[in-house]
Amino acid sequence: MEPTPEQPAAAAAPGEAPVSKKGAKKAEAKAKKEALKAQRAAELAAQAAAVTLEDDPAKDSYGDRKDTTSAFSPDAQAVEIRELDDSHIGKTVVVRAWLQNSRVQSAKMGFVELRKGGNWNIQGVVMASDNAPVVSRRMVKWITSINPESYIAVEATVKQPLEPVKSCRVSGLELHITKCYVLAPAPAMLGMTMGVASQPIVNFSDEKAPADDAEAAPKTETTVPAASMLTHLDNIAMHKRAPVQQAIADIRIEVKRFFRSYLEARRFKEFEPPCLIGAASEGGGNVFRLAYFGEEAFLAQSPQFYKQFEIAGGRERVFSISPVFRAENSNTPRHMTEFTGLDLEMEIKESYTEVLTTLEGVLLSIFRGLQERCAEEIETVRSVYHSEPLLLPEPGKEVRLTFAEAQKLLREEGPAEFANVRDDEDMSTPQEKALGEVVRTKYKTDFYVIDKFPETARPFYAKIDDSGATVGDGVKVTNAFDFFIRGQEVLSGGQRINDPAELEERIRAKGISPDSAGIKEYVTTFRQVGVPPHGGGGIGLDRVVAWFLALPSVHLAACYPRTPKRLMP
Amino acid sequence: MEPTPEQPAAAAAPGEAPVSKKGAKKAEAKAKKEALKAQRAAELAAQAAAVTLEDDPAKDSYGDRKDTTSAFSPDAQAVEIRELDDSHIGKTVVVRAWLQNSRVQSAKMGFVELRKGGNWNIQGVVMASDNAPVVSRRMVKWITSINPESYIAVEATVKQPLEPVKSCRVSGLELHITKCYVLAPAPAMLGMTMGVASQPIVNFSDEKAPADDAEAAPKTETTVPAASMLTHLDNIAMHKRAPVQQAIADIRIEVKRFFRSYLEARRFKEFEPPCLIGAASEGGGNVFRLAYFGEEAFLAQSPQFYKQFEIAGGRERVFSISPVFRAENSNTPRHMTEFTGLDLEMEIKESYTEVLTTLEGVLLSIFRGLQERCAEEIETVRSVYHSEPLLLPEPGKEVRLTFAEAQKLLREEGPAEFANVRDDEDMSTPQEKALGEVVRTKYKTDFYVIDKFPETARPFYAKIDDSGATVGDGVKVTNAFDFFIRGQEVLSGGQRINDPAELEERIRAKGISPDSAGIKEYVTTFRQVGVPPHGGGGIGLDRVVAWFLALPSVHLAACYPRTPKRLMP
Repeated sequence: MEPTPEQPAAAAAPGEAPVSKKGAKKAEAKAKKEALKAQRAAELAAQAAAVTLEDDPAKDSYGDRKDTTSAFSPDAQAVEIRELDDSHIGKTVVVRAWLQNSRVQSAKMGFVELRKGGNWNIQGVVMASDNAPVVSRRMVKWITSINPESYIAVEATVKQPLEPVKSCRVSGLELHITKCYVLAPAPAMLGMTMGVASQPIVNFSDEKAPADDAEAAPKTETTVPAASMLTHLDNIAMHKRAPVQQAIADIRIEVKRFFRSYLEARRFKEFEPPCLIGAASEGGGNVFRLAYFGEEAFLAQSPQFYKQFEIAGGRERVFSISPVFRAENSNTPRHMTEFTGLDLEMEIKESYTEVLTTLEGVLLSIFRGLQERCAEEIETVRSVYHSEPLLLPEPGKEVRLTFAEAQKLLREEGPAEFANVRDDEDMSTPQEKALGEVVRTKYKTDFYVIDKFPETARPFYAKIDDSGATVGDGVKVTNAFDFFIRGQEVLSGGQRINDPAELEERIRAKGISPDSAGIKEYVTTFRQVGVPPHGGGGIGLDRVVAWFLALPSVHLAACYPRTPKRLMP
Repeated sequence: MEPTPEQPAAAAAPGEAPVSKKGAKKAEAKAKKEALKAQRAAELAAQAAAVTLEDDPAKDSYGDRKDTTSAFSPDAQAVEIRELDDSHIGKTVVVRAWLQNSRVQSAKMGFVELRKGGNWNIQGVVMASDNAPVVSRRMVKWITSINPESYIAVEATVKQPLEPVKSCRVSGLELHITKCYVLAPAPAMLGMTMGVASQPIVNFSDEKAPADDAEAAPKTETTVPAASMLTHLDNIAMHKRAPVQQAIADIRIEVKRFFRSYLEARRFKEFEPPCLIGAASEGGGNVFRLAYFGEEAFLAQSPQFYKQFEIAGGRERVFSISPVFRAENSNTPRHMTEFTGLDLEMEIKESYTEVLTTLEGVLLSIFRGLQERCAEEIETVRSVYHSEPLLLPEPGKEVRLTFAEAQKLLREEGPAEFANVRDDEDMSTPQEKALGEVVRTKYKTDFYVIDKFPETARPFYAKIDDSGATVGDGVKVTNAFDFFIRGQEVLSGGQRINDPAELEERIRAKGISPDSAGIKEYVTTFRQVGVPPHGGGGIGLDRVVAWFLALPSVHLAACYPRTPKRLMP
């Protein structure tokens, strides 16, 4: 993209097809508008071409460049858009950013919008002038012809605009450009424009539907069509550049940070559980298997056993942030084959409620922390995916129900279809959702704990309540619980059995052989040494982010969502 | 382990076999000593048995208990050993800890050593007395018979010992025990005692040698035999409980913390690269493959492509802490099949040296930080695995050599065997080691950078130096570097190609098809959008920990080392 007269005008038509029959008319109108725009651009190009490049007194001030060493004035200060404030007014700065779009005002004047760091943007003005530094008409033409999403570097004087630039976050300043170089050009035709990338995703299916996005397109008045998750993943860079995804990624970071800092302040120590394991120890159904030097290896479904080995190994309190894997062929917005687990395990001194209280503290610190520190990011997400703020309980008024209490509530105050739910059978996803609404109405909170699950609904390592309490047809209850937000489970935890004989008994009761691979080594560890009473829990990071923001799919919360049909990019 | 007269004395003989013919005599002497000890214990037991349990006025103050609710005095304060200080003198406390060992002084008096949190230990005294609270002789007997490594809870009065207890970290205090309950008993016979677990590991082979550890046992004067890594892994809880492993694990945590905090302070943003990927994009040789819903998936060998996708996706600077996998059948102390990568990638403004300087800053902040903040842990490790402190350059005197300079140095000042090393061929591990010694002698540092690697020694995405500089037989040099400590590589990094045409050319030059799976999608991303100039690097967490401490094997630095023959636990 050398500055020659042949340079075509920026392709104004985005790369996506119109989305529905209704949309066809709009697309037609749009095409007409674009044709006019192209014509105008051609006229301007012709004007600019009247002078040959060699005659251009500004010819060194623009163009393609890979190396910007000594391209800028020595006194120009390199700044990021987010750093710009009134102290920069009148100063010469160098800004590197994406050119989001441009507009030709006249042969002498154009505007560009520069973006960097999620949703930091600012208006740039380029105006032909014979004063030094000279800005030529050709330069104006060239700059306003740069393909959107190209990465550029400009030298500019910071000025106050006549009135605030409403379309830009840095609305009180603008950049009067005197030099402009394209460091990395985008193609004329983007696979997905920023406009499309910033629309809500309309289809999360793993498979390309015959009509793809057309059918599912939302019936809004917007002229920008929306795309499917597949299109977004096929254009991963544009997907990620959209401010909504940048905000989600920033919130994801904060969740991890709140998790870590809450626990580190309470003397929890981090460790890394392995991904490769020697046995499908937590149920063989949904486990990935791989050839391993003549043997078989498995991918960890959770760090459960390893957290417990840490406790057996003398750690009082541990946490881990690690990938976990489920070979589940579920093509839903709730499922992924790889996700990130936030896990902890701790010694119990007197009661397993110490664990429950710690986990409640962790999650509340995450949610309250996000609401306080990420208000702006949450707003950005909500502007695309609308949601109600997460209702949290007042301090000291946390809602903890036993499983039996929760089922009773559902029977008595939930929809009629759940009038007969049992206290000794696990909840279904629709039940959980319905309960979420009942709890919200009754207790004014979207966050609550369900404790004392029946043993039928928990794995073998869950500690049974010593009191001997039962529910339903004499099913014992466990010291195990789930945490919910908006009726969706985000955490599972409880006390673990630390006595090897008791453990073996429960393993047999669940119909598992204590001699099976992985299980045997697990129980052996408890026999080899004394292991203190302990408990813990696991949080799905992707789910916490997705359900906190009420996103339509957990795939939006992941950095690179993995589904049965999708491993790229 | 109810407090009955039948309770046998603690098995004083550790579970391991004597280690060599020389050791046999020692073992014999030891056995005799133990027989005497057992005899003495039996006598004491007989004395204690003279009173039946029901007569024991202290009978509620000791025994096995799972539930300690209301077991202790309401005014007794629960404390951790590490928290104990002079302010506790005279107070009644409850301490939960591992019983490390015990000693019978007389029928009326015994000593126990309690341990918690790595190497925090304190002496406990139990003395029969008729004063309230009553401590009976039987109670003394019972407590001193508890199997080592059982997890216990004691109620005790904190007192100052007559003289400091040299064997304990909390030497200025002792616990006068009035209640003692075993919460989780260890077996009489441990698979590996704490004494053995605290010896240097003598054999890191994946395979059990016929004579196992016997041959390799170090010829020291110690009476405690050492064990192999296999024995350690078979006794994972004891392996981890050893103070040396606790210290290594704590140092590992700090490395991650320094890495993260240095980068977060410089606006790097964390993300999680996927483990499951759709193509063996970085060379198919050492990649794990798995069946994936009728297709094939691979385990990531590095987060390289994904870090670059983040930059393409609008992030200025990113880092990740993630597992990476190598299907390399190497049975050496340097190799693992799964390890933790500390990776970063950043936009380059003017020069790739920005990346180099950042990475240098990261590593120096880690090493200086460890030396400052982990002096105690380092000392603990050194008491088992001796090493010289890592020599670091003075600020401003960092050593950066070009690859050609390094080879010249090796030719001229290294061992004779390396007198003909070439400037256009990659270094071997012995060459690297030898260079480490030359650099240490010449520059007084164990930490240095080798820059400008020849392109023959780097992957296709390494940016070739624009100056056109060559080495050897006209081989071009790259803007890529490795970092070393003690002659061992801990970091690899450099500038990446961000121009898609240049990238494709290099892919072809390396004999790879630009249309091959993974590569095609990678290059496509660069074609889809403008990607700023960028570079980064990757640090092997396990190696940084191992080489910083000069450990004999990287396996010691891992939480759960994965080798071709070992996936358990």
